[in-house]
Amino acid sequence: MSKRVNTVAILGLGLIGGSLARALRERDFCERVIAYGHREPSLRRGKEMGIIDDYTLDLDEVVDRADILVICTPTLIAANVLAEILPRLEGRDNAPVVTDAASVKGSLMTAAVKACHGEFPPRFVMGHPIAGSERSGVEASRADLYENHRVIITPVKENDPSALSLVRDMWAATGAEVVDMDVAQHDAVLAATSHLPHVLAYALVDALAQTEGSEDVFRCAAGGFRDFTRIASSDPVMWRDIAIANKSALLDAIDLFSDHLGQLRTAVASEDADGMHETFTRAKAARDRFSVILAERGQDK
Amino acid sequence: MSKRVNTVAILGLGLIGGSLARALRERDFCERVIAYGHREPSLRRGKEMGIIDDYTLDLDEVVDRADILVICTPTLIAANVLAEILPRLEGRDNAPVVTDAASVKGSLMTAAVKACHGEFPPRFVMGHPIAGSERSGVEASRADLYENHRVIITPVKENDPSALSLVRDMWAATGAEVVDMDVAQHDAVLAATSHLPHVLAYALVDALAQTEGSEDVFRCAAGGFRDFTRIASSDPVMWRDIAIANKSALLDAIDLFSDHLGQLRTAVASEDADGMHETFTRAKAARDRFSVILAERGQDK
Repeated sequence: MSKRVNTVAILGLGLIGGSLARALRERDFCERVIAYGHREPSLRRGKEMGIIDDYTLDLDEVVDRADILVICTPTLIAANVLAEILPRLEGRDNAPVVTDAASVKGSLMTAAVKACHGEFPPRFVMGHPIAGSERSGVEASRADLYENHRVIITPVKENDPSALSLVRDMWAATGAEVVDMDVAQHDAVLAATSHLPHVLAYALVDALAQTEGSEDVFRCAAGGFRDFTRIASSDPVMWRDIAIANKSALLDAIDLFSDHLGQLRTAVASEDADGMHETFTRAKAARDRFSVILAERGQDK
Repeated sequence: MSKRVNTVAILGLGLIGGSLARALRERDFCERVIAYGHREPSLRRGKEMGIIDDYTLDLDEVVDRADILVICTPTLIAANVLAEILPRLEGRDNAPVVTDAASVKGSLMTAAVKACHGEFPPRFVMGHPIAGSERSGVEASRADLYENHRVIITPVKENDPSALSLVRDMWAATGAEVVDMDVAQHDAVLAATSHLPHVLAYALVDALAQTEGSEDVFRCAAGGFRDFTRIASSDPVMWRDIAIANKSALLDAIDLFSDHLGQLRTAVASEDADGMHETFTRAKAARDRFSVILAERGQDK
């Protein structure tokens, strides 16, 4: 029986793209998965590891061969790749569906509209798998990376319904829970739950690293500090680009957080035991509810 | 062969005290471990579980029987327990050594001096095991909780050398690495690596919990957020008390952090890619070095 989708092309074969390729091949979603990129060694490695069927360094070739093009490059590069691809699809019959996995959607939407003379391209579907790792590269990829994780699709009114449905089906095939969200809401939610925590972890570790006797400071840190700061080991280039791409929502999140921290500082300074107890208790209740959500998904460890 | 120490008494049998009792019995440090507290059910439970040999609700009895009294109550209560014990030891021959496991040392030192008419009691040794869990209670106790973890002793010039040596030996028997630190330095280091991260995690989770549609915000959070916010599930009473006890060092740590966060905010707002990259890279390098320390201790997971 032939499959609905012939060829999925991964543009940028790292952790995200490699894991998608593995999942689609393992779940038999398409006839073949090919990859495109600038760096032949990772592509060759992906083929040797059996993660992809084939690869090319030629953008025209990948656009010709694929039914779905998935841009899996870091956030700012995704906008550049999009600007290269979209003009190649104009006026074409059976143009492939284009989608992405970037962490910020508003800036990508702007880039797409700019690349298409002011109109959003109907067959470009914006998506974002909420999964990752502080590790990166095709070697770190895993077929089960998206299982029981959310993939957020941010549809716009110009979207072709068949393109939306194909992208939703692709992510569902990886075992992910596919949900829709408005572009601005996506960027605000991700700023709060992901981009802000990364900035806070980087700020804390950098502040301590610059303290006198910092080696000893780190030697006295325990499990709480280890978990709290784990994301400060993430790729600096990737997070710099995300911070720039989602600047406005991130600044809002920083300000909301700083406001709450300021209130807690006042409570500490005035030894307001009741105020602290109230805040800590409310936060613990919310975090405990989050633990229940994680346990339901088997992601509590 | 009889052991050097006859009876160790744990005052407050929770995670910290229960784990110490288990470790000392398993490593055969003393003839017996007894416990004292106000809540008979946990004490009875500890005896039933074989964590302690015996217990009492009578403070005079525990002071009479023990060679070492270890105050394992939460931070603020430790000061009260100390104030009850120290007067009972005055002028006594063979008074037991008293030590503690509280998270803040400066406020405890003040309490000890106050309880002894302005003089620090030589046989009171301040200690702090850097280990714990967001779980609590004697049921969560483990014999290996302190293995390869640091225990900080904060000696003062008034301390009796034999008392210091006994407390160091006790913690070394649990498999911990025992190190000395100045009282003020201890409180500053702990504010930075433990108390501040808890305040930040509580502030972030509370800020998000109060956001409209917070349920959906948490549903979109992934592993990074899970690890970053894990400590917001910690006991609100314990952390309220620590924040009050270590107020001055905690305020300094909050201010240092806020200053760094403000610098990063400026970098984001002005799209200062180089500035962000520099900070993130420096933080990643420090966090990666910390990972090496953790891996050496087998605590990287």
